[in-house]
Amino acid sequence: MHVCTFEHLGQAQSGAVSGAQIGVLRGNELVTLADKLTLPHGAQLSAHQPMIDLITHWPAVRAQVAALAAGAPADLTLDNVHLLAPIPRPGKTLAIGLNYLEHVQESIVGESRTVPEHQVWFPKLANAIHAPFDDIVLPRVSQMSDYEAEMVAIIGQRCRHVPLERAHEVVFGYAVGNDVSVRDFQKRTSQWTLGKSFDTHAPFGPWITTSDEVGDPHGLEMRCWVNGELRQHSNTRLMMHTVWSQIAQLTQVMTLEPGDVIFTGTCSGVGAAFSPPKFLRAGDTVRVEIERLGAIVAHCVDEDSEA
Amino acid sequence: MHVCTFEHLGQAQSGAVSGAQIGVLRGNELVTLADKLTLPHGAQLSAHQPMIDLITHWPAVRAQVAALAAGAPADLTLDNVHLLAPIPRPGKTLAIGLNYLEHVQESIVGESRTVPEHQVWFPKLANAIHAPFDDIVLPRVSQMSDYEAEMVAIIGQRCRHVPLERAHEVVFGYAVGNDVSVRDFQKRTSQWTLGKSFDTHAPFGPWITTSDEVGDPHGLEMRCWVNGELRQHSNTRLMMHTVWSQIAQLTQVMTLEPGDVIFTGTCSGVGAAFSPPKFLRAGDTVRVEIERLGAIVAHCVDEDSEA
Repeated sequence: MHVCTFEHLGQAQSGAVSGAQIGVLRGNELVTLADKLTLPHGAQLSAHQPMIDLITHWPAVRAQVAALAAGAPADLTLDNVHLLAPIPRPGKTLAIGLNYLEHVQESIVGESRTVPEHQVWFPKLANAIHAPFDDIVLPRVSQMSDYEAEMVAIIGQRCRHVPLERAHEVVFGYAVGNDVSVRDFQKRTSQWTLGKSFDTHAPFGPWITTSDEVGDPHGLEMRCWVNGELRQHSNTRLMMHTVWSQIAQLTQVMTLEPGDVIFTGTCSGVGAAFSPPKFLRAGDTVRVEIERLGAIVAHCVDEDSEA
Repeated sequence: MHVCTFEHLGQAQSGAVSGAQIGVLRGNELVTLADKLTLPHGAQLSAHQPMIDLITHWPAVRAQVAALAAGAPADLTLDNVHLLAPIPRPGKTLAIGLNYLEHVQESIVGESRTVPEHQVWFPKLANAIHAPFDDIVLPRVSQMSDYEAEMVAIIGQRCRHVPLERAHEVVFGYAVGNDVSVRDFQKRTSQWTLGKSFDTHAPFGPWITTSDEVGDPHGLEMRCWVNGELRQHSNTRLMMHTVWSQIAQLTQVMTLEPGDVIFTGTCSGVGAAFSPPKFLRAGDTVRVEIERLGAIVAHCVDEDSEA
């Protein structure tokens, strides 16, 4: 199944979360889920995080959602809605660095281009989370904004100390992400946090494709184009630390919860690796596409020209 | 004023956020705020984030809260409540590293002990946020958990590109924090994220002291004791990047929002700097105290002995 978060066009299009609704897709048609689901113990989807509530109650509502997707009349089509990030406010969003060998080899991190011994993790903070087709804002304080195509995994249940062989059980689904990175801010201190968390720099979507529909997430073609030029092309089978290994590592440290988001790493071909570098400029269009998960497309605008 | 988030003893003491209420303190007495405030446009404090709502509406409700603190009958005393983190789920929590010279000099970061040219930022992720008097859990995967006494600033309004001279306007108040750090996980990769975000490793409180009551936050005595032994003692005037400078830097990058939390850096005396190191052990008691802001106290327990 494909589940999405959206606001109805005609409602405020500001990206405000308050008008967010959730739905399930049938091709181009959308069946809204609010008021159609019977949740356990009389629970309701909350207004402030309906997708996280759906994920939390998924074992109990999955069959209902499947039936609605198969047989309910469509309420809307994708043309009538503004898709938002599937989870507009994840409890936390973590991203792994240097997880594809060819990207390690094109990157200069510290003094070496060697594969790190342990998984390298950084955050994408709340205001970076962004809708899949909304404009990416290029900050006024840098000329070095860059794209990074990534598969995104969405956690399905509260979990800690998940063994490798059970990690697939805790994933709700997958989406397409762009780990937009401001290279000078990323590299001017030892910590990448600021360079990875500019406003609008973690778009993902266009929807969540549920785990059962994806099967093994480690064999999906992944591509990124800028203005129609293919810049990145790889396959998720080439990630060095699998999604399962990432979940095992993270849950040694912290509890993961429904709706937490994991950016699983980018492949080679980022703008910084070209000579001269190909950073994003106002007017550029970035498209990230992953087999079976769909595509997200963003126009780039300068911060100071924002409407 | 001192505002706090708590659950009434007798209710579930699990630390679950659902039972969280907010109140204002008068010495040891507590006046609850739910249902006593008139918010603009008929708004209500939400059940899921009442403190963030209070902060958001602060200009409109401040006089009401002050009047309740001064004259309303007490509903409870601190003895009847379990204090929670003042903001149990901040939208984001950022922490600055290496912000006191004597701490830089005691730390080995990379190959040098030099003062970084730019502010160094890392996250404390959601499940690290912890109540001010609850047990700190020492993870099973490390023997190198450490304390870091820090003043914490709480953001009062949505803001971006805040100039240095206006940064004081966007702070709602201050609290006492412990930036618990797992040194091997912090240092075994280039990024500190995992070592700084173990579950329970960002306790703060005991309440928020509002900005007007604190005045200049850069002249407060700060102390940390472990089992009664004074380990850290400094003054917030010794931070190299002031709270104002931190806000100016962060808001170049991202929008800050009401209830966002900033850990403003620790002073010298962390356990890792002793020879041999003095890491936290089960049974230890850590007390962090900051002038005018109060104290937080935690007992340390091993993860595998948790009740």
